[in-house]
Parts: sequence; structure tokens; C-alpha cells
Amino acid sequence: MNNFSATYTDQYQLAMAQVYFNKGHREHRAVFDYFFRKLPYKGGFAVFAGLEDLLSIIQDIRFSKADLDYLQKQGFKGEFLDYLEDFRFRGTIHSVSEGDVVFPTRPVLQVEANIIEAQIIETILLNLLNFQTLVATKASRMRQVAGEAHLLDFGLRRAQATGGFYATRAAMIGGFNGTSNVIAGRELDIPVSGTMAHSFIQSYDDELTAFRDFAEDRPENCVLLVDTYDTLKSGVPNAIKIAKEMEERGHKLLAIRLDSGDLSYFAKESRKQLDAAGLEYVKIAASNQLDEYVIKSLLEQQAPIDVFGVGTNLVTGDPDGALDGVYKLAWSNGQPRIKISESIVKITLPHKKQVFRVKDENGKCIGADAIGLDSEEMVEEMFHPHEPYKSLKIGQFQQEGLLRKVMENGKMLIEKRSLEEIADYSKSRLAELPLEYKRFNNPHIYKVGISSRLQEEREKLIQSHKNSAS
Amino acid sequence: MNNFSATYTDQYQLAMAQVYFNKGHREHRAVFDYFFRKLPYKGGFAVFAGLEDLLSIIQDIRFSKADLDYLQKQGFKGEFLDYLEDFRFRGTIHSVSEGDVVFPTRPVLQVEANIIEAQIIETILLNLLNFQTLVATKASRMRQVAGEAHLLDFGLRRAQATGGFYATRAAMIGGFNGTSNVIAGRELDIPVSGTMAHSFIQSYDDELTAFRDFAEDRPENCVLLVDTYDTLKSGVPNAIKIAKEMEERGHKLLAIRLDSGDLSYFAKESRKQLDAAGLEYVKIAASNQLDEYVIKSLLEQQAPIDVFGVGTNLVTGDPDGALDGVYKLAWSNGQPRIKISESIVKITLPHKKQVFRVKDENGKCIGADAIGLDSEEMVEEMFHPHEPYKSLKIGQFQQEGLLRKVMENGKMLIEKRSLEEIADYSKSRLAELPLEYKRFNNPHIYKVGISSRLQEEREKLIQSHKNSAS
Repeated sequence: MNNFSATYTDQYQLAMAQVYFNKGHREHRAVFDYFFRKLPYKGGFAVFAGLEDLLSIIQDIRFSKADLDYLQKQGFKGEFLDYLEDFRFRGTIHSVSEGDVVFPTRPVLQVEANIIEAQIIETILLNLLNFQTLVATKASRMRQVAGEAHLLDFGLRRAQATGGFYATRAAMIGGFNGTSNVIAGRELDIPVSGTMAHSFIQSYDDELTAFRDFAEDRPENCVLLVDTYDTLKSGVPNAIKIAKEMEERGHKLLAIRLDSGDLSYFAKESRKQLDAAGLEYVKIAASNQLDEYVIKSLLEQQAPIDVFGVGTNLVTGDPDGALDGVYKLAWSNGQPRIKISESIVKITLPHKKQVFRVKDENGKCIGADAIGLDSEEMVEEMFHPHEPYKSLKIGQFQQEGLLRKVMENGKMLIEKRSLEEIADYSKSRLAELPLEYKRFNNPHIYKVGISSRLQEEREKLIQSHKNSAS
Repeated sequence: MNNFSATYTDQYQLAMAQVYFNKGHREHRAVFDYFFRKLPYKGGFAVFAGLEDLLSIIQDIRFSKADLDYLQKQGFKGEFLDYLEDFRFRGTIHSVSEGDVVFPTRPVLQVEANIIEAQIIETILLNLLNFQTLVATKASRMRQVAGEAHLLDFGLRRAQATGGFYATRAAMIGGFNGTSNVIAGRELDIPVSGTMAHSFIQSYDDELTAFRDFAEDRPENCVLLVDTYDTLKSGVPNAIKIAKEMEERGHKLLAIRLDSGDLSYFAKESRKQLDAAGLEYVKIAASNQLDEYVIKSLLEQQAPIDVFGVGTNLVTGDPDGALDGVYKLAWSNGQPRIKISESIVKITLPHKKQVFRVKDENGKCIGADAIGLDSEEMVEEMFHPHEPYKSLKIGQFQQEGLLRKVMENGKMLIEKRSLEEIADYSKSRLAELPLEYKRFNNPHIYKVGISSRLQEEREKLIQSHKNSAS
């Protein structure tokens, strides 16, 4: 969709890179963790998305001639610019699979590379993963309450410019069925659908003629918008007339669409009129400021809605706007690294790590992920990250290592999957998660703990920083 | 920045376009209004942004061969595809100047074109104007409270993919001074700045050496991040040592940056330490979840902060996520058009229109915009759009027509301005607006009214729809 130049980054990445280069640190190996601290929407889980885009982009990321000229004008200089001219990302990445459910504070993805390469990809990594994970999570919440109803992304007009493209992709991973966004449909090979705007009907002198022209031109794919003038007195009766005319020509009206008013009431009344006319097969689509709460409420009221079109609240991740994903150094130049903070919850985890999902004998999550050192094969007992007296013995359970190698020497190791495959995988992972973690109100808190060895390593580093500071 | 193909659109635009084409409406002239219904942030104004991007994009918008192949597979066919192959936007656009203050319900921009062209550009128009206006408005609220302090956009990592580029542009229009986004700096010719991440310091065995390496490599442009370990006991004292070393080499430390903790307290204590060391010239930069309210509060507490770096809340427009801008048909095929709604505030305004800003003898806004027919030269008395007994005589005031022709026959008529020029213009327009409209809490409501002729025309159309429905 876009050409992501390597200058699609924050300037400080390049400033730091030049210092590393000039001070002889360019070959220092570093490990960075990508993780977030807070679940969006006060929910109990997030759906990880954006991985394949990220890997394809960084596999090809380069500085162009124009980039280098610009950087020179910005004061970057000498051999460092030559280095950037040949820049490739040659690192290794371990990651959770795209579509999996993920939880706060534990590494979702781990980058291992020389420190310059690891730093230069930070911004694009955060940008892609934060946004897609936010939207996929929002979408999956809607899928969770929508049952078998179709969910369509209508958000392009409210997205951040070309960001709409990635919103559509993430929505599909979260369980949406299609989009109105034509270019996303084409590039991502997903169903595109569209009906008509109110302006179409207004541009005619009467609604019936507008409907008729539309139906004649799109006999296979006709959805009529019924709320331009008066939904129940004009829109639905006119749609019924057209549906009958279509039947005479051997076609079927696909659906009507409601876009205003009390959607539950209008859906029920429209359904009655359609059924009374023998048009049980005509579906009802609804749109207008929908989100997971409105969809849930509509279906609880038994509103006979078959298709929901969701725009703003999907593509902006409203009310959260952003996932707070960060990228923190865990290792460099042969040493584990830590960020001390006045707030204990913000102290980072040193070392290269593995994350284990704990499961019972039926393969169902018990609600815990344990973080160990990458040399550990499993975790016997996991400790609360900040309250060391809280611990949980997990040696008796199955443990699944979640971080898998997805890139090595800058080459993607995983096969690209279709969005449908990623969405199916996501669905299966969500199914392993007990319902308590999926409810909207005060969901059960998924436990994330650290192994005793990681705990010891962290404690040693904290003490050594205390000693050197005093 | 991006190649916006004409398929960067909602499918229904093309579905409607094909019907118009096949049913002989392709030459019908149409007028669409772009406007929004609700001010973001419960504020008293919005800053209009995105116009130049929009005009350059639609001036060049085309369907590529790949687009047409895809559309054919999607069921579009025959002569309509030939038409799309030669598609150009050849319409006329009247608009408010970019950077002006704008208010709900009145046209901000008006598109006049054949109905197919007008429809095909709808999605990209909404996408660009909604987002940039949202962010420019957010930025201008921060500028309003930041006084002379520098405001820097740090939002790329939390933006919607490439949407970050447009966020940066809009932030500059709203009064920001620079960005961390390198590619935006290059393409928009704006100042780019960057410091260092915590990881830079963590990657060294000690903070002082990290600072020293950075200062040696960037003597002209050195900002040190002081909160990695202990701001007041380690970060600031080490920064002071480095500043002294820099002085010996004839250089000056530019600033220190605070990124956590109580920013007011740490800024004051840091300032004391810097001043006591004779480093009055070293500035203090702050970042971490800032927005207009936090900046206002920090400055009210007299926190000595010279530079604010703002990320998430700027580029996501938090807490609003989106501007609710819409695109409504006002005229087609020789007839004024209206959308009737059960909610009176959603009834649209027919006809091609002009908007007049009402000003007193000193050129200061009196707080009213009047909407008239485009044939009116001024408005004598403006009426509340939904409460016809409320009116305001404005014939005695100066009236400035706000909608100017910016595109004709698909060619941009206005000269491109630099972002600085647009920002200066915005500043001057904001200065004309009394303070009551700019306060954050319950701002005074700017009046938007319609002329008696527009009122009559609208009433006629409502009556004729009532008659045809009954």
C-alpha cells in the first residue's frame, strides 16, 4: 500500500544511531521487548495484529538517495551516511503469532539485532503494531457479541488518511466480514460491499425511481437505503415494491439498510412489513454510530438485524485512540539491561525471554502467562512481577512457548497467511480463553508472572543500580 | 507522500456512479456541502485543515489499469469502465481558507461538479478534511495555553500508520513548532528534532558516559534525557557535568528532557540545579501524556518548561477520535435538494450557498456566521436554523464572504502556501475571535444562522416533501 522509507521514523532514532556508529557500538547486539502496559477498552484481552505488515516492511526497508541527501542537510555526516546507504535490517525477531490473544506487561515480540538496526525500526514497529492491535481488539469485541451477524467496516471516511487501510486489515483479523474500502478490498483480497448514500435518493425527484434505477443496474447486489424521507411510510414500502419487481425478473433484493433513528424499533417494524410481503429472505443492515455496546444491546432487544456497518468507533479505536505499546531495551553488549523507575510497575524486565501460556489438560487457558529467561524450558512457579510474596505453582500444567522465531538475518521465516487464516486462528485462541476474561464489565484479570530466575536476575540489576547510585 | 488512487474510496460511490452513468444522469450538475455538526473537545471553535492536500490529490486522481481490472472483477462493466478510464475531476470547489476558524452546521466547503465526479471524491474528501481539522483544532488548543513555549509533535508511534504524516501537517497549522517525524520534516519542510530514548542510556554501563558520547557527537544539537535512573540525584547532575565539559569546547547544552514523574516538581528542581551551576541558558523540555489541560496546569504552576513534546493525545485527537464531518447534497439536476430527518437538526440546507462572517467596525468577530444563498451579497437578518422566532439583525455589520473559489474545472486556483503561512493566517483568524469562544469550559456558543431567503427555500422543500408523502 505504501512505500515505507526508513525515514518513516522519529529523528532521535537516527541521532542515537549516529552516536552508536561513531563511538564504536555499531556491532553491539541488543534485545528489545515490545509490550504494552494497559489493555484497551477496560477489556480482559487484546488481539495481536500487524505482524506480517511489519515483517514485510522491515525486510525491505532502505534509505533512498533523497533520504540521505535530506539527512546530510540535517547535519548527519561522513561514514555514518555511507553506512545508512547500505542499511539493511539483518536482525532476528521472535513473536507471538498474529491473531493470538495477548496481555499487558509481557513481551509480545522481541527484536535481536545490532543496536543501530534495532533502534531504526522502533518507530515503524510501534506505529504498525499499536494501531492494528488496537483495532483488531475492538473488532473482536464486536464479533464476540454479534453472533452470526455480518460485520462490515465502513470507517474509511473517519480514519487517519491512509491509516484506514490498516484499520480494515486489523478489523478482518478481529472477525469482520468485509469492508467498504475498495483499495483495501483489492490489496487484501477481502469482500467489498457498498450500498447507496442518501444523496443518491435525494438526487432523484422521488425515492421509488431512485430505488428502481439502482435495482435495475445492480440486480445481483442490491441493498436499498430506506431512511431518507420516512422509513416506515415511504422507504420500506418502496423497497418492497422494488423487491417484487425484481422477483418478476428473477432477481432478489439482498437487503435494506437503516442508518438513523431507533434501530431496534425500525428493524422490527421493517421486518414485519417485509415478512408480510413474503420477503423473508430480504436482510436488514444497520449502521450509525455502532460499537460493541450498541450491537450487544440491539441483539439483546432481539432486533432482527443481519448486517452491522461500523465506522468511526472501529477505525479510531474509540474511546481509547491508541494502544500504549512500548519498546524497551532488555540486553545490550553482553549485559542484561533494565530501566529503573520511581513507579515499580514501570521497571522493565532484563534479558532475552520466553513467554509460556499455561493450559489445563484440555488445552484450555487457566488464565496465566509466565515469563521466563529464554534458556528456561518451562516455569515451575510464577511470581507476581511487583509483589514477590504472591506466587502460583504451574509446574503441573502444560506450557506453550509463545515467542517463535519469525525473522532471521532480516528474512521473514513465516509463510504469509490469508487474513481469513489469521482470523480463524484468532477465533480458536479466543475460544481457549474462559468467558470471564471476555466479559465487558470488570473482566477477570489474566495473570502475568515471572519465573524465579528472571526475578533473581532483575533483583540483582536493581541492587547494582542502587549501589552505583549511592 | 502517498499515491491516492481513485479507488481509495467507499464502494458505494462507484455503485452509485455506475447507476448515474447508465441511467443518463452523468451530466447532472450537483452541489455538495461539506460541514460538521459537533465541535470537537467540547470546544468553541475548530481550525479548518487539509484543503491543499485535498485539492492536489483530486486534481490528479485517476483510475489505474489495476483499479479497472479489479473493478471489472467486482462486477462493474461496459462503457462505465471506459468512462472511469478517462475519469478526471473537472468540478469547481468553493472553500473557506485553510487555517480559518469554522463552526458547526455551516458549509466549510462546497463541491460543484457532475454528480459522478462529486460522488467519487467524497470519501477522500471526508477522510482528509475530518482528520486534519480534528488535529489542527487539538494543536491550536495547546498553542493557546502554551504561550511562547515550543510545541513538538512526537506522535508518529501512536498514529494510524501513514496517517502520522497528516497529523504532523495539521499540528503545524494549529501552531506547533516542529516534529520528530523525519519524513514529514523532509516533505513538508518543517523543523525536525529529536533527543534520545531511555534505551540509549541503558545501553551504556553508566549514564555519564552515555551523555558524554551523545554530546561529543552532537555538540550543536544536544538534548539529554535525565530520568532514566534518578532525575535529581543522577540525571540532572550528570547533565550539568556534561554541559560544563561542552562549555570548555565552546559548545552549549541545548536542553534536558523530563519524561516521567511530576513534571512540575521535577522542572522546578532541575531549573534550580541548572541555574545554581550557571546554566541559565539550558532549556527544559517535557513529555509524557501531555494534552492542553496538562500543559495549562503545568504553566499555571509556573513549571519552568520551555518545550513540550506531545504524542498520543495530539495525533489521535483524543478524546474525540474523529470529527463528524459529512457531505450532503444541496442541489442536483437543476433542483434544490434536501434531506428530511426525524431530527430537525439533521435537516440539510438546500441550494448553493455563501457563508458570511459578521464583524464589528474593528474587524473583530461578533460571534456569528450567516448562511445565505450564493446569489445574496449580504444578509440583513439571520434566523436560527431550527427556531425561526429567534433572529438577529446583522445588516449594520461588516460581512465577509468565506467561501472562495479554490478550484475550477478541476484545476487548483490558489497558490500553495507554506505551513508557516497557513499557521500565521490561522493565528490571525483566531485573534479575531473573542476569548469567550476560546475558553475550555462551556465556551460561548458561536451563532450560525440562515438568511430569510434560505429559510423560505428550505420551508418550501419541506412542505413539498410533506405533500408528496401524504
